[in-house]
Amino acid sequence: MKIIVDAFGGDNAPLEILKGCAEAVKELDIDILLTGSEAEIRRVAKENDISLDRMEIADTPDVLTMEDHAGAVLKEKSNSSMALGLKLLAEGKGDGFLSGGNSGALVVGTTMIVKRIKNIKRVAFAPILPKKKGFFMLIDSGANVDCKPEMLRQFGVMGSIYMEKVMNVSRPRVGLANIGTEEHKGGELQQEAYILLKEAGLHFIGNVEAREIPEDAADVVVADGFTGNMLLKMYEGVSIAMMQMFKEVFFKNWKNKLAASMLLKDIKELKKTMDYNEYGGAPIMGAAKPVFKTHGSAKAKTVKNALRLTKSYIAGNVVDEIAAAVAVYKESQAKEKQAD
Amino acid sequence: MKIIVDAFGGDNAPLEILKGCAEAVKELDIDILLTGSEAEIRRVAKENDISLDRMEIADTPDVLTMEDHAGAVLKEKSNSSMALGLKLLAEGKGDGFLSGGNSGALVVGTTMIVKRIKNIKRVAFAPILPKKKGFFMLIDSGANVDCKPEMLRQFGVMGSIYMEKVMNVSRPRVGLANIGTEEHKGGELQQEAYILLKEAGLHFIGNVEAREIPEDAADVVVADGFTGNMLLKMYEGVSIAMMQMFKEVFFKNWKNKLAASMLLKDIKELKKTMDYNEYGGAPIMGAAKPVFKTHGSAKAKTVKNALRLTKSYIAGNVVDEIAAAVAVYKESQAKEKQAD
Repeated sequence: MKIIVDAFGGDNAPLEILKGCAEAVKELDIDILLTGSEAEIRRVAKENDISLDRMEIADTPDVLTMEDHAGAVLKEKSNSSMALGLKLLAEGKGDGFLSGGNSGALVVGTTMIVKRIKNIKRVAFAPILPKKKGFFMLIDSGANVDCKPEMLRQFGVMGSIYMEKVMNVSRPRVGLANIGTEEHKGGELQQEAYILLKEAGLHFIGNVEAREIPEDAADVVVADGFTGNMLLKMYEGVSIAMMQMFKEVFFKNWKNKLAASMLLKDIKELKKTMDYNEYGGAPIMGAAKPVFKTHGSAKAKTVKNALRLTKSYIAGNVVDEIAAAVAVYKESQAKEKQAD
Repeated sequence: MKIIVDAFGGDNAPLEILKGCAEAVKELDIDILLTGSEAEIRRVAKENDISLDRMEIADTPDVLTMEDHAGAVLKEKSNSSMALGLKLLAEGKGDGFLSGGNSGALVVGTTMIVKRIKNIKRVAFAPILPKKKGFFMLIDSGANVDCKPEMLRQFGVMGSIYMEKVMNVSRPRVGLANIGTEEHKGGELQQEAYILLKEAGLHFIGNVEAREIPEDAADVVVADGFTGNMLLKMYEGVSIAMMQMFKEVFFKNWKNKLAASMLLKDIKELKKTMDYNEYGGAPIMGAAKPVFKTHGSAKAKTVKNALRLTKSYIAGNVVDEIAAAVAVYKESQAKEKQAD
């Protein structure tokens, strides 16, 4: 298995990306095709004593930054490490693609270069997030501001397949993010999506309220991209604010510092549980080939975790499973239409 | 000043409501008109040695519960303590109304019985929430699932006036909840609301991302009711989940319990900072007379805090200020139209 990696995506590129790749090659038994400036990659690897064993390099000097607009990946930055990675994936030069770069550009580039699975209306950005026990997927969390009910149905199907095949959750519980649990709650979008999800052959548990999500509302939380982005960012914001507030208490004076030192191991464990970096990032669901986004702030360990998930995304045949599920649905719809 | 209080709204009614009212009478120099079963109120007051000094009672046996649908306040529960309170307010028998009952019913009842301020399109549910330092208003957080841009403009105006007159925030910073800070971000609703808010004569600071809200994004966060409700509930959910996780660490074993006991005072302080009960509840903004919702779980202290805010809501002439601001805008719009 060969995974294409954007060596220049994210704040800590290329050093932490290379470190993570080197660890992954050893631990995960994969080959890697790096995209980016070959001279720079070789220089950083040499200076930091990182082995490039089982890694090839596709040379390109350009880098797409966080400041570039999303469409740049197709135009002025069409030779960037991200754009090249997507092209190589589309051409079959690797089995999957990982980038820590600009999310918007990755979504646009994936849609236009790698393309979508047949009959999938939109790709979705679908981070794996921690909850009190375990994790859940939030799909879509920002790729699509305006959504149609059918898109939400597809998000549920894709999320369910991913959680089962990659995250080993059996019969993933799929919930629709809404302002109440009753079937008629929400706007038109939610009301119509509810009906579609109920009939989608999933383990659909109905509407879930945001209040229950951090506890354990569902394994897959379905939302339009606007709502999902709000939920994601509020989740991050409250976690960060509260962690900081506790930290201030722990460092307030010598007595508190002493007490905190006694709790250190358990607090670190808690922090790890709530760390949304722990799960490596977010698959771009609905792409015709596996594309995975890792955090812009990813360090070597997160890059390695992300490569592990990209490997499972490939090995789990998630793309084929989604394609099959969508095709079956399309057929059943056509039959229903004929019967009418 | 006389405040009408729903003696049977909320989980701890009537006992905690009566206690809170008795404290408020002493501390805030107000008169109170209670609605609900007079026999029950007198019995509970006597049994718990609560003075009913400066309190009248408007007798009604009916109670509207959390299980009742919102419309019940106008129909089968039109004699409930909540409905009666709203009617007495509309008739001028008091200067404001406080209830800890069913929020949906209170919004419907306020709109239909107390009515809206002239030219205000919808009333909004607008809780005051803690942030890392201080507090902010989230308007609307659930009264209106579907919103028009002009409604969001009005939410900004109303929230700004409330924060200035009641919460003593000078030049309140008004932000629009959105998925990015750039002006063109979000859907049609956000894009159009942005333009209206920019020209509303407020201290409008543009779009705010959910991630920054718990830190200190704005004093007034404007959102449609669906988004606002998601934000509110996610806020509550993450706070609760994290507090529980820390609690588990603190109680894990004897060593941790000892350490936690050393931190107890500061942790309590932190918990208080993050406690969304601390601010007493949420005004129903846009109502033709002051209506205030306190938490269903409110105990005496929260009821007293809510009465303090209701008093400021009345004393600050918030309703008149909003009416004037809306009238001025309406006039300027009419002139603009003439000029065209």
